Amino acid sequence: MPNVTRSWDKLSDHNPLIGFVDACLRGPAQVVLQNNPLTGLLVLVAIAWGAFENGQPRILGGAVLGLVVGTATAVALRVDEPSLRKGLFGFSPLLTGIAVPTFLDDRPLMWLYLVLGAVATTVVTLALNAIFKTWGLTAFTMPFVLTTWVLLLAAYQFDRFTVLTNLKPMFPGEGQLTDGRFNWDLVPTFLRGVSQVYLINSWVTGLIILVALLVNSRWSALFAVIGTVGATVLALWFGADATSLDKGLFGFNAVLTAIAVGAVLHRPGALVTVYTLFGIALTLFVQMSLTSMLTPLAIPVLTAPFNIATWLLLLPKRHFAPVPNHERAKETVVSAVKHSV
Amino acid sequence: MPNVTRSWDKLSDHNPLIGFVDACLRGPAQVVLQNNPLTGLLVLVAIAWGAFENGQPRILGGAVLGLVVGTATAVALRVDEPSLRKGLFGFSPLLTGIAVPTFLDDRPLMWLYLVLGAVATTVVTLALNAIFKTWGLTAFTMPFVLTTWVLLLAAYQFDRFTVLTNLKPMFPGEGQLTDGRFNWDLVPTFLRGVSQVYLINSWVTGLIILVALLVNSRWSALFAVIGTVGATVLALWFGADATSLDKGLFGFNAVLTAIAVGAVLHRPGALVTVYTLFGIALTLFVQMSLTSMLTPLAIPVLTAPFNIATWLLLLPKRHFAPVPNHERAKETVVSAVKHSV
Amino acid sequence: MPNVTRSWDKLSDHNPLIGFVDACLRGPAQVVLQNNPLTGLLVLVAIAWGAFENGQPRILGGAVLGLVVGTATAVALRVDEPSLRKGLFGFSPLLTGIAVPTFLDDRPLMWLYLVLGAVATTVVTLALNAIFKTWGLTAFTMPFVLTTWVLLLAAYQFDRFTVLTNLKPMFPGEGQLTDGRFNWDLVPTFLRGVSQVYLINSWVTGLIILVALLVNSRWSALFAVIGTVGATVLALWFGADATSLDKGLFGFNAVLTAIAVGAVLHRPGALVTVYTLFGIALTLFVQMSLTSMLTPLAIPVLTAPFNIATWLLLLPKRHFAPVPNHERAKETVVSAVKHSV
Repeated sequence: MPNVTRSWDKLSDHNPLIGFVDACLRGPAQVVLQNNPLTGLLVLVAIAWGAFENGQPRILGGAVLGLVVGTATAVALRVDEPSLRKGLFGFSPLLTGIAVPTFLDDRPLMWLYLVLGAVATTVVTLALNAIFKTWGLTAFTMPFVLTTWVLLLAAYQFDRFTVLTNLKPMFPGEGQLTDGRFNWDLVPTFLRGVSQVYLINSWVTGLIILVALLVNSRWSALFAVIGTVGATVLALWFGADATSLDKGLFGFNAVLTAIAVGAVLHRPGALVTVYTLFGIALTLFVQMSLTSMLTPLAIPVLTAPFNIATWLLLLPKRHFAPVPNHERAKETVVSAVKHSV
Repeated sequence: MPNVTRSWDKLSDHNPLIGFVDACLRGPAQVVLQNNPLTGLLVLVAIAWGAFENGQPRILGGAVLGLVVGTATAVALRVDEPSLRKGLFGFSPLLTGIAVPTFLDDRPLMWLYLVLGAVATTVVTLALNAIFKTWGLTAFTMPFVLTTWVLLLAAYQFDRFTVLTNLKPMFPGEGQLTDGRFNWDLVPTFLRGVSQVYLINSWVTGLIILVALLVNSRWSALFAVIGTVGATVLALWFGADATSLDKGLFGFNAVLTAIAVGAVLHRPGALVTVYTLFGIALTLFVQMSLTSMLTPLAIPVLTAPFNIATWLLLLPKRHFAPVPNHERAKETVVSAVKHSV
Repeated sequence: MPNVTRSWDKLSDHNPLIGFVDACLRGPAQVVLQNNPLTGLLVLVAIAWGAFENGQPRILGGAVLGLVVGTATAVALRVDEPSLRKGLFGFSPLLTGIAVPTFLDDRPLMWLYLVLGAVATTVVTLALNAIFKTWGLTAFTMPFVLTTWVLLLAAYQFDRFTVLTNLKPMFPGEGQLTDGRFNWDLVPTFLRGVSQVYLINSWVTGLIILVALLVNSRWSALFAVIGTVGATVLALWFGADATSLDKGLFGFNAVLTAIAVGAVLHRPGALVTVYTLFGIALTLFVQMSLTSMLTPLAIPVLTAPFNIATWLLLLPKRHFAPVPNHERAKETVVSAVKHSV
């Protein structure tokens, strides 16, 4: 296996086309913060399974198209080569490519919309990374979230699109939460929590994604499980909507937070695990509040809660500067005026 | 008195437990930008009075619990010691601790929610300060505002909580403004404007807070009065809702802006007073627009208007850099592509 | 002509009053990113024409008042002199001065509101520029947008104002899109797309503005046309609301993006034109999504879409730094705790 890997890496370095394929394969893996083409390939298999299982093969087409267009846009814009090769310009457009055929009705114009959306996702990735660099952060999947929100909200204003989110705009608190008469066999629910990272409702897909994680990092696979179990059980305890819970919709954001905070961005350990458990609760609360905020607009939260919670958890830095709070400002517009009159 | 103060400071420096108590006492004072444990103690008395007067003693419990949990979280996270000692990690969790029992129904789970909220408030404080440091600002009470909004909006999605904000989600402009047949004796209204800084509707509480301010800074007490009088009278003139006005709800944000801009963050003076009067009007307009924005979500504005207005007033710096506006950008993605093809 | 220009420039340099007039004249030109007093004068003529054609002369009064008050506030706050002289503190208050009498009913208090709004626009300009400087950007017309949104949303809460936006708050997707039985003679529509940059619905105004652009920069005039034609035709193709389309409401944001990205902030060329065409589509989609987002609040998008799209297009920098994505963070709160226990 290591030999195969080494040969593949060598090939990718020398053949630009294979290099591009390699970058494209790493994209699906980078959604769950892994840098491994095999993981990416397995994720694509998982997406394919879910798309066919749910009778929507065009979702697989959208995923591949988004991934290729987004990565090609990055090539055209001459972005940083090593970042490109790691798949860091593929993962957000891949998700945009899944979201568009999931939430809009099938028609030729939808595919043009998807392509424009994938290009935009790469531009937004570059733009947001330029901003987040200021605080040593990256945009994670937020470019996908913002672009998809724009595409869905804009579709309301175009006669030629129909939005199929199954959400009805209403005021928060108006909807009826379905009661907890769900199936007590929660394992498929936990697995659907993993598959929903890629907007897919299928426990088989979830299982394949866990295998894909295992291939690259046991810690990541473990924390993915902790994330989906932790957030789902917490949501259950607090009395969240049972229908959404059963679809795994309260798990997927916590899966990403748990992988990021617990396994990838820190060295795993006891303290990190405590912080991650708090992070899972934070992600769930942010997700629930965002669900309320977006209720009048009838758009889904996507992976925004993961992004917001993980930024909040990473921003506090080690060498805490003294808080410059509540002390007299030295150079303000007022002192400027005073000094010059 | 100075002797007592000196002895206390000495004790706090040497005994870690008393140091922690001292930090906790300064928290309530830092809400109104004062660094003084006696001021903090008096504020706690004011909160206690209001809590019992309104038949909600659990609000006092929530305040103390939030304050202690938030400060202890900062200790556990090893934040900058001097900032901690000034009470800069206590004031936002204190407010979260007041807001949760004020806006959610009483049940054991609410207390767990409050504790998680207080921990989150400290994490958010660290995160926002890391961002705002970029522009020489601090997060003020925004961590409290954001955390409380998240907790309230999330509560809509949990069967086991009931939101008690007395607000009904609707479109802005739909609600009926109550007419100005209020009591013309405005002094209690002005004092309630001060007490609402701590989410309490009681003129006695407002009076005790003014005394607490006087103990530490006459200028701060004076500008607090200017803030509540200015904003309330302006709201009255423009025809704002009389019921809210009577409860002091148009005063408390301007109280904070006036203390911050007029007394603490600038050296008081004629020019500063003019800028502060403008700041009071700005705070009121921001508050009213935020009220409209949050009407569909039925959550209160809290102290967000103070934060936004004060940031806007402090951002313009003395040495105004030339505005790099409307000039040809030298290094953009387009020029990158052009140079390399 | 060059002689006249030179004499005028000399006069402005020596006579402070004429210098102030010069700065005020450049303000209207800077909305469309031109630095030329003659262009500004022609724009004022265009605004005057539109105001009288639509029977609302007070809009001209508001424009001039906003322009003068905003520029005078910048003088009072001792901002960077060369920036002031270029008209960079006049263009946003000018637009606020047009928006207030357009969207609020006529009464004496409205004029006080307008003056406060013009002052606030200048303060917000300084504040936002301080923030955007971090990424080498400026605030463009966003200070106008934010201030006007605040003024309109606040007006809902004041008994003494009536909001006249002709928008009814509703959920997105609820409104009926009017069908494409518009006049196939699109030239006046394209010209109204130009006039709507200044919130005016008049093809004559649009024509005068094109002349004003031509006086200073042929490229800018050309890209203004490309912007309004491109966005309007795209909106038509996708089936946008025909009534709004006919008023030029889908053109004006793209006009600004096209001038900024295509002619002013890059050196015009083939590659830049491709990027600009993409930018026009991006602007339209952002505008449509913002329209949906603001539907429950019943406020117009103003020029926010231009600002957002242009920032996104400019942020990606030439020397793309490696994306610091998904790598282990070195200094976080967790490592801090770990190191010290």
